[in-house]
Amino acid sequence: MIGQSGIAVKHVRRADAASVAALAKCGVATIHEAMGRIGLLDTHIRPIYPGAKACGTAITVFAHPGDNWMLHVAAEMLQPGDVAVLGTSSDNTDGMFGDLLATSFRARGALGLVIDAGCRDTAELRDMGFPVWSRAVHAEGTVKATVGSVNTPIICAGALVHPGDVVVADDDGVVIVPKQRAAQVAAAAAAREVKEAGTRQRLAAGELGLDVYGMREPLAKAGLKYFEDEAAWQREVQK
Amino acid sequence: MIGQSGIAVKHVRRADAASVAALAKCGVATIHEAMGRIGLLDTHIRPIYPGAKACGTAITVFAHPGDNWMLHVAAEMLQPGDVAVLGTSSDNTDGMFGDLLATSFRARGALGLVIDAGCRDTAELRDMGFPVWSRAVHAEGTVKATVGSVNTPIICAGALVHPGDVVVADDDGVVIVPKQRAAQVAAAAAAREVKEAGTRQRLAAGELGLDVYGMREPLAKAGLKYFEDEAAWQREVQK
Amino acid sequence: MIGQSGIAVKHVRRADAASVAALAKCGVATIHEAMGRIGLLDTHIRPIYPGAKACGTAITVFAHPGDNWMLHVAAEMLQPGDVAVLGTSSDNTDGMFGDLLATSFRARGALGLVIDAGCRDTAELRDMGFPVWSRAVHAEGTVKATVGSVNTPIICAGALVHPGDVVVADDDGVVIVPKQRAAQVAAAAAAREVKEAGTRQRLAAGELGLDVYGMREPLAKAGLKYFEDEAAWQREVQK
Amino acid sequence: MIGQSGIAVKHVRRADAASVAALAKCGVATIHEAMGRIGLLDTHIRPIYPGAKACGTAITVFAHPGDNWMLHVAAEMLQPGDVAVLGTSSDNTDGMFGDLLATSFRARGALGLVIDAGCRDTAELRDMGFPVWSRAVHAEGTVKATVGSVNTPIICAGALVHPGDVVVADDDGVVIVPKQRAAQVAAAAAAREVKEAGTRQRLAAGELGLDVYGMREPLAKAGLKYFEDEAAWQREVQK
Amino acid sequence: MIGQSGIAVKHVRRADAASVAALAKCGVATIHEAMGRIGLLDTHIRPIYPGAKACGTAITVFAHPGDNWMLHVAAEMLQPGDVAVLGTSSDNTDGMFGDLLATSFRARGALGLVIDAGCRDTAELRDMGFPVWSRAVHAEGTVKATVGSVNTPIICAGALVHPGDVVVADDDGVVIVPKQRAAQVAAAAAAREVKEAGTRQRLAAGELGLDVYGMREPLAKAGLKYFEDEAAWQREVQK
Amino acid sequence: MIGQSGIAVKHVRRADAASVAALAKCGVATIHEAMGRIGLLDTHIRPIYPGAKACGTAITVFAHPGDNWMLHVAAEMLQPGDVAVLGTSSDNTDGMFGDLLATSFRARGALGLVIDAGCRDTAELRDMGFPVWSRAVHAEGTVKATVGSVNTPIICAGALVHPGDVVVADDDGVVIVPKQRAAQVAAAAAAREVKEAGTRQRLAAGELGLDVYGMREPLAKAGLKYFEDEAAWQREVQK
Repeated sequence: MIGQSGIAVKHVRRADAASVAALAKCGVATIHEAMGRIGLLDTHIRPIYPGAKACGTAITVFAHPGDNWMLHVAAEMLQPGDVAVLGTSSDNTDGMFGDLLATSFRARGALGLVIDAGCRDTAELRDMGFPVWSRAVHAEGTVKATVGSVNTPIICAGALVHPGDVVVADDDGVVIVPKQRAAQVAAAAAAREVKEAGTRQRLAAGELGLDVYGMREPLAKAGLKYFEDEAAWQREVQK
Repeated sequence: MIGQSGIAVKHVRRADAASVAALAKCGVATIHEAMGRIGLLDTHIRPIYPGAKACGTAITVFAHPGDNWMLHVAAEMLQPGDVAVLGTSSDNTDGMFGDLLATSFRARGALGLVIDAGCRDTAELRDMGFPVWSRAVHAEGTVKATVGSVNTPIICAGALVHPGDVVVADDDGVVIVPKQRAAQVAAAAAAREVKEAGTRQRLAAGELGLDVYGMREPLAKAGLKYFEDEAAWQREVQK
Repeated sequence: MIGQSGIAVKHVRRADAASVAALAKCGVATIHEAMGRIGLLDTHIRPIYPGAKACGTAITVFAHPGDNWMLHVAAEMLQPGDVAVLGTSSDNTDGMFGDLLATSFRARGALGLVIDAGCRDTAELRDMGFPVWSRAVHAEGTVKATVGSVNTPIICAGALVHPGDVVVADDDGVVIVPKQRAAQVAAAAAAREVKEAGTRQRLAAGELGLDVYGMREPLAKAGLKYFEDEAAWQREVQK
Repeated sequence: MIGQSGIAVKHVRRADAASVAALAKCGVATIHEAMGRIGLLDTHIRPIYPGAKACGTAITVFAHPGDNWMLHVAAEMLQPGDVAVLGTSSDNTDGMFGDLLATSFRARGALGLVIDAGCRDTAELRDMGFPVWSRAVHAEGTVKATVGSVNTPIICAGALVHPGDVVVADDDGVVIVPKQRAAQVAAAAAAREVKEAGTRQRLAAGELGLDVYGMREPLAKAGLKYFEDEAAWQREVQK
Repeated sequence: MIGQSGIAVKHVRRADAASVAALAKCGVATIHEAMGRIGLLDTHIRPIYPGAKACGTAITVFAHPGDNWMLHVAAEMLQPGDVAVLGTSSDNTDGMFGDLLATSFRARGALGLVIDAGCRDTAELRDMGFPVWSRAVHAEGTVKATVGSVNTPIICAGALVHPGDVVVADDDGVVIVPKQRAAQVAAAAAAREVKEAGTRQRLAAGELGLDVYGMREPLAKAGLKYFEDEAAWQREVQK
Repeated sequence: MIGQSGIAVKHVRRADAASVAALAKCGVATIHEAMGRIGLLDTHIRPIYPGAKACGTAITVFAHPGDNWMLHVAAEMLQPGDVAVLGTSSDNTDGMFGDLLATSFRARGALGLVIDAGCRDTAELRDMGFPVWSRAVHAEGTVKATVGSVNTPIICAGALVHPGDVVVADDDGVVIVPKQRAAQVAAAAAAREVKEAGTRQRLAAGELGLDVYGMREPLAKAGLKYFEDEAAWQREVQK
């Protein structure tokens, strides 16, 4: 049940390692396209430093505003290759995560964090190379008073995340690949990259997308009219 | 007509090359001041990486939300030295532009893109050194279903842009110089830079702006009162 | 009186230099915690470049929207080690501060600026290494028509700032330490850093926060239940 | 699959009528509490007129930005007592719904619409008494070019909605009750209302929540200290 | 020139009275559609009370943040049937307009105000029945220190407005009809209303938009597939 | 100390009743002007229903995100004529206040609430006629886990509020009058109303503000130039 508090699930089925490894080679935009244009988190989730990149399996965290207790509970569930993903019961930007938790997460083998709340100690995290995608940078401290859940399905920044799903995050944002679809999406993304490489070459050589993608006829059908210059357009308007 | 769909104007009169070259030497803030404090795009338009800089002539694009078809039409109109500028019929942050279109734009000689929508593949664009100023970074894909226009006047992020106008963009944002005023503004901006260099030297030497700009008398006239310290101020208040 | 216009106080009592030096060694998050989780500015105040850092005594500026006159008045009050802090009478993002004022401020010994308005010439400021924390990057110019105040108490981005208070700013944002508390907070922050260093070592070695902080019992009391896996949880739900 | 396009499911299992009728008697806040504080849509979803109220079973719609085609597909699936709920693939405020669609929806027996996009003809809708909860009021027209889905699970304003779930909406916003839990939540909400009626009487008679809820001891344990007046507090501080 | 300060144009050519009268009978959404889906102001412009409605010819005002001087200059240019429209040089929410200016505007025959800034005395304005569409309700006072312009072209909330253009505003927002197109748009809007009346009747009688607009075939071509129920869809997915 | 937790001050010195009664007769905009254009809360604080009005003495509440415990503590301090004002340690929109607390507050004689967080049960509050000014309408429930303070100075929506200050709130927003200045501000506001009544009469009779306020000469000095029509302006431009 989404948003239920008081649950900590110890063991989760994770997406298979081969698919995760394959997805790690692709960018967020490519994977999102390969899935059928779904799975992105909202644009308010941004990396705390440029060049951040992570691909791993989700440990999900549900927390309440101003309370980071569940991140400590989550630390115990983290395995090498995991990425923690935190959603909240209500909008909040408090700095739930900093360099101490990052030290703990890294010791457990975690590759990063996606948090629909705030992050702090961002200079230290950049120096550590521990990537975080957050809603805000905020030094505001949090309490440990109310329990949420770990490893239940959550909604994080508009996306549904199940424990064990693949989380891919880079400069463009974050995409979630359901574990059941990981192999299929990895294959589709790889195929897309191959195809795009060919297109890229043609475009780099000066060919136009209009021709590469065969758009001229559909554009005309959709009503696009070409004019030699502004004067020609204005003559048409005044007819 | 602003916002009309279905028009693609092939040839546009561009600002003269000498003025564009002169403007390229100045920053956005200086040019905006030299024009009489006008021409800036809204602050939600930000470069996708620090240090981005472009100065060129506008190819204008009018597009609908979630639809990047017109960027392909615009590619054909791009000439070396152009900067594409895209406005939309309604607020949208979808990732209308990525590394494939950038490859095509660069092959045509374009220097950059200003887009009141989203941009993706930002790591690749940074690596390519292809500067984009956008409303958002968003991996969300777009369709090619509804025609807009190319090379008609548009409103982009609160500024009116005609095809061929000069687009200057840097870390501070984006300013549009109407092509008819390009030479005059370039001269005024250059003059301003000379004048500011002198002021900068005086300020660096420790002179105060109060004296450099002769502000002491106008401040007094406008009602500013000096007090030695807080106690003196409080005594005045309690009189 | 907060928000009164027309006052310029020349001399202010500043926090003691030893406390400022001690605080300069700590991060914003640590200091905020050491003060009892107070004193932060709102998250809309961000550094104009990554890695910005400043710690100094506040010269306060109260200004009106679109008018940067008071920054020139403030320049005269600046002493080596000061950080200017500007609040406004109403929300505004105009570029009140640029490289000329930064040149003047630096000549006076100022270490940086915190401004609840816009900043421009950001590439030049980055090159100068003059750090600014602002609400926006905006090239929009300002007038010099209406007086505000210098060195009166202000509210800046949700925080009360008195002249002479300590301003600490880094990648995480900005925290204000009242001058009366500077020594106490500096000591508490240093103690906190020592304690955190120990905790960091234990966490890095793989110990869990759950054990380091003794959270297992409080979590159980607060109602957290552990399940081996999702199936176990679902069996519980269906009971 | 959330966010898949091209699917129109004709028949859905709806929450039982008795539970819907029972929930219709309770407010959104009460139901949210009775469910365990979950199920609310984000606060950007607001009624287009005060006093709007609806409680019915969800017909779900997944649409693309600037495209309202799927609302016409949904009209055919609507039965008396339904409330349509629309989520989008990307943020959009275009006016996807107006008085013509409302006329059609009402003819089908629909009780209202929850739409994470824009609404128009709001004066006419108010006159019709057809309630809509939307992200924006916007006259901007939409196209019919790209298919989404009807009656697949969607995320709308941060909440997961399945076809047939109960949608309760009033001045406070919108809450979704999963159909499987409808009876249980209806009972819990009714019980809560009875209990609150008793509490309301005591509070109206002047009793304090501190006593009604037994908060004095927990507050003291949590560290709250009472002082007779400000002077007493200041004496304590200076000890 | 857009955004030039210091200009006050006394006499403007206004859209013809017959067209204005015809447009006054239509809603903002209808007129926007009849113009080809253009001309709307951004959605941040909202009426200060429900049921507000105005249709008149534009007197344009360009003002600086926190300065309402130009509204007094505009008062002199107002004639019966005019609507004042104010854009600013930079984002601002200060309360530039209140009941005194409304008294003056009404005495001149003005029908309302559209202002991309703040409005105050909103209870009095509601009591007077003087409609205002604004970016914010804000009591913040303004100065009279810097000149802008009256009756020059402006950009207001993303729309280009020339003096004399028709301004139509209601609960849905604001649309600008260029004076040259007023007659044509009025005719198209009236025709649209007639056509919509017929459609409304059919929809009210229970016909579906799918049939009224002939959408079934295009939807199938665009890839929409119907399933009897969720089980049927899931069987398809698992094939 | 602003933002300190754990303090509850029982008795506060309130502004004198005569001043409060006098201020109750004036609107927020007038009082703000009479104070010297200061004291307003940020525009994100809005009444939950139109026509809301309150004027009373402040009981201040400092709370943590998602926790409304301190509102119960505040209830005991409320006396007839008080208005509760709540600020938070960090941005939060949770529904901290609803009809039960309103029942309790009203039983204590409170006149309303200003809350920089969310409010719920808004239909019931409107029916009760209990006015609330809030940052959001949100049904989200809160916990009672962390203590804040009551009757310490707070910052609420950008304004400093001391216990006992006068809170005036209406459709335009909220203004805080420091208790020490209440008599003076009440007198100034009354005088302003008298003066404005005279001005209103002159404006209603058709006199222009340009003449009433003697603006013609200052406008000319500031550089405003009048042109008969657009053609005259364009001739000037082309000189």
